[in-house]
Amino acid sequence: MIGAGPSGCGVLMAFKNLPEEEFKNYKIDAFECQAEFGGMWNYTWKTGVDAKGNAVHGSMYQGLWTNVPKEIIELPGYSFEEHYGKQMQSYLPRHVVTDYLQGRYAKADINSMVKFSTRVMDVQYDESSEIFTVTAKNVLTDESSVGEYDYVFVCTSHFTQPKLPEFEGFDTFEGRVLHSHDFRNASDFKNQDVLVIGGNLSAEDIASQIVKYGAKSATISYRSAAMEGGFPENITWVPLLQKIDKENVAHFKDGSSKKVDAVIICTGYEHHFPFLPEQYTIESGNRYITNNLYKGIFHEKCPKLMFLGMMNLFLAFVIFEIQAHYCRDVIRGKLEDPKTVSVEDRMKDIASQKKLEDDLRKAGDVKGLAYLQADYITDLQKQSDYSQLSMHERMDMFMRVIEIKTANRMTFRDSKFVSQVTGKEALDVKKPWLENFDATVNMA
Amino acid sequence: MIGAGPSGCGVLMAFKNLPEEEFKNYKIDAFECQAEFGGMWNYTWKTGVDAKGNAVHGSMYQGLWTNVPKEIIELPGYSFEEHYGKQMQSYLPRHVVTDYLQGRYAKADINSMVKFSTRVMDVQYDESSEIFTVTAKNVLTDESSVGEYDYVFVCTSHFTQPKLPEFEGFDTFEGRVLHSHDFRNASDFKNQDVLVIGGNLSAEDIASQIVKYGAKSATISYRSAAMEGGFPENITWVPLLQKIDKENVAHFKDGSSKKVDAVIICTGYEHHFPFLPEQYTIESGNRYITNNLYKGIFHEKCPKLMFLGMMNLFLAFVIFEIQAHYCRDVIRGKLEDPKTVSVEDRMKDIASQKKLEDDLRKAGDVKGLAYLQADYITDLQKQSDYSQLSMHERMDMFMRVIEIKTANRMTFRDSKFVSQVTGKEALDVKKPWLENFDATVNMA
Repeated sequence: MIGAGPSGCGVLMAFKNLPEEEFKNYKIDAFECQAEFGGMWNYTWKTGVDAKGNAVHGSMYQGLWTNVPKEIIELPGYSFEEHYGKQMQSYLPRHVVTDYLQGRYAKADINSMVKFSTRVMDVQYDESSEIFTVTAKNVLTDESSVGEYDYVFVCTSHFTQPKLPEFEGFDTFEGRVLHSHDFRNASDFKNQDVLVIGGNLSAEDIASQIVKYGAKSATISYRSAAMEGGFPENITWVPLLQKIDKENVAHFKDGSSKKVDAVIICTGYEHHFPFLPEQYTIESGNRYITNNLYKGIFHEKCPKLMFLGMMNLFLAFVIFEIQAHYCRDVIRGKLEDPKTVSVEDRMKDIASQKKLEDDLRKAGDVKGLAYLQADYITDLQKQSDYSQLSMHERMDMFMRVIEIKTANRMTFRDSKFVSQVTGKEALDVKKPWLENFDATVNMA
Repeated sequence: MIGAGPSGCGVLMAFKNLPEEEFKNYKIDAFECQAEFGGMWNYTWKTGVDAKGNAVHGSMYQGLWTNVPKEIIELPGYSFEEHYGKQMQSYLPRHVVTDYLQGRYAKADINSMVKFSTRVMDVQYDESSEIFTVTAKNVLTDESSVGEYDYVFVCTSHFTQPKLPEFEGFDTFEGRVLHSHDFRNASDFKNQDVLVIGGNLSAEDIASQIVKYGAKSATISYRSAAMEGGFPENITWVPLLQKIDKENVAHFKDGSSKKVDAVIICTGYEHHFPFLPEQYTIESGNRYITNNLYKGIFHEKCPKLMFLGMMNLFLAFVIFEIQAHYCRDVIRGKLEDPKTVSVEDRMKDIASQKKLEDDLRKAGDVKGLAYLQADYITDLQKQSDYSQLSMHERMDMFMRVIEIKTANRMTFRDSKFVSQVTGKEALDVKKPWLENFDATVNMA
């Protein structure tokens, strides 16, 4: 397994849940380039490359809070109440989530399967023997190791390799230009007029962050459509950037312009698998129905190569565990082996799913996309022995989350929800998010 | 050849200078990961990794000016006067130097030997056939190519892989932390109190830069010794950082402390050769006499593998060309082939040179180190057909440069020198460096 963040650990836990006598038949190695569990939820001050020349994996920033309530990401087998022994508010600062995840993995006792600080460098697949040869390198010692496996899970997430658009004038602009991957501290932008490029969640979140921490304004430049509803006066949306001139004035497609002090590129990430042979990689594209993956998991040309969590996510965490259980049961021979489906039929299936997504996108039907994901997870869930907690109900909750957020982007994190896992309602916040600079969390 | 910056181009030009009938006997490929000539002198707004996941090569920043007069870096075969057709001042902003270098290479007509946007991924050496196999990748198309060579020149510079020390409190510090490799715009630090870590040239230069562009103060934390002489009141030197506490106060080894808004790590770079087999790499260490390199060039275990410009540099540019001519004449059989010297003798020679350096360092004798380099270059120069312009005289000029700088670090760039190449004195500046924000250069 490549990666031991939330999706990789989902696989480890799925196997660990098997009866002891069955579990011992599997030899599982998980390679994790970081030094501990937590995946993208670990924070590092580092940006760019680390001391060994490896690209820094993390994109976490210091002031990050969840953009959904904990009730959306809560794992059916491990409630926040179980972890903390207390009730608490719905929206949480990053370290509270990291701690929860690490508690989950400690409880599951999966540590011995993980090789930390180890980066997978190369994966080769022999079609005749159906064996994968995996070369990994310890990033601290530079020692290499080679192992053979019947299956490979790619659980590397897709929040590491920035998409980097080019715009005229970046090379003469006299302010900071960075991708959100390298964004760490919102207070760097205090008193500044900041241009944010990108029309999705990270643009929205980083604009809110920097305004919270004292930026004068955030001007968000979108390619396709502006987000609507609930933004404060100093967060505005403008069409695509055309250039930044030598007076540091940004010019937009509608002819408008704005002098800016810094540019944050929030255009998202590329799927990036430098360790995979080209024919076994997947095409980039931030989609709900992922290119090249049968059932959103199995590589169309090589179904023993499985990718977890590669889609855009409404319901993070729980989707990884459901996919993991499904894969495990395919490997155990309890579910249809995708190898018994012809490559053509796998590709046809992917195409028909993609058409559903494309039609919903054309219609601008976000709700439809959300329930497409709910249908997808529910389908996998029903065939596995994973908790049968309703993912459609959870998606209903997600819809209420969106409603509250679009009413006011600066106060939505003060709302509260009822846990599907424990049935209990979250506490009120002690300190509104907008005034909460010390990560105060109401717990009792 | 790996790298077509100033040292790689030195090799290309050395061969190109041969008579046509001799030159045509050589097949030379230079692989350059950037899209054009200029090496470290090219500026990019990018930091971290590029759109293809490769570490960004450049460390150039927007407001950089040379920290020595042009007369120190001027190439004997191509004066600044020849390039610009004019006289000008001594100290220059970066783009004037980049333009000069590109003019040099255009004149030399070496373009056809260079594969731009191509990164060397792997070098293997077969000891029995004495052949190098070099695998390179076009960074735009991802296409790989493999070639065989009798000699390999490593001309990749050593200003790409940051040395990254760890200090307590970086992960909770609420300001920006960056390595000088990612430093681009001094004005980002306007009105800030900035901690600069490192005791060498980049710490000195970046501290001066940010103060010029309006930083409230720069506090430079050194490990071994403070630089002395000529700093303004708001650039101060303190001993090594111990930690940054949760109130963003930096604490130093002498018990002093200072609240800071940002941290710039100016601890320099590691030699970094991810493409070389481990036994053919060289040990890091910023030295004048480089580890593992016979005559500062030839790998002690494999002299057909040559490294240019890997030492700390007093006299950049010219040293590369002299090394290049020397290597060329070794390959042509005009000079002693290092292969005829036993490995033991090569290592003994390196050790005795290193001892000279170590003794001078212990004595704190910077002047001695400078003339050690002058002796080294002169020795190579005398054996080649390169210009015999006195490098000792040039080092005398360097000593005057240091004297003027240590009198006043904020005005030394307004001084002028006489070109060794043309015999002419530089012009006075039009605008003092400290008030020069638009890269005004006096040319006439």
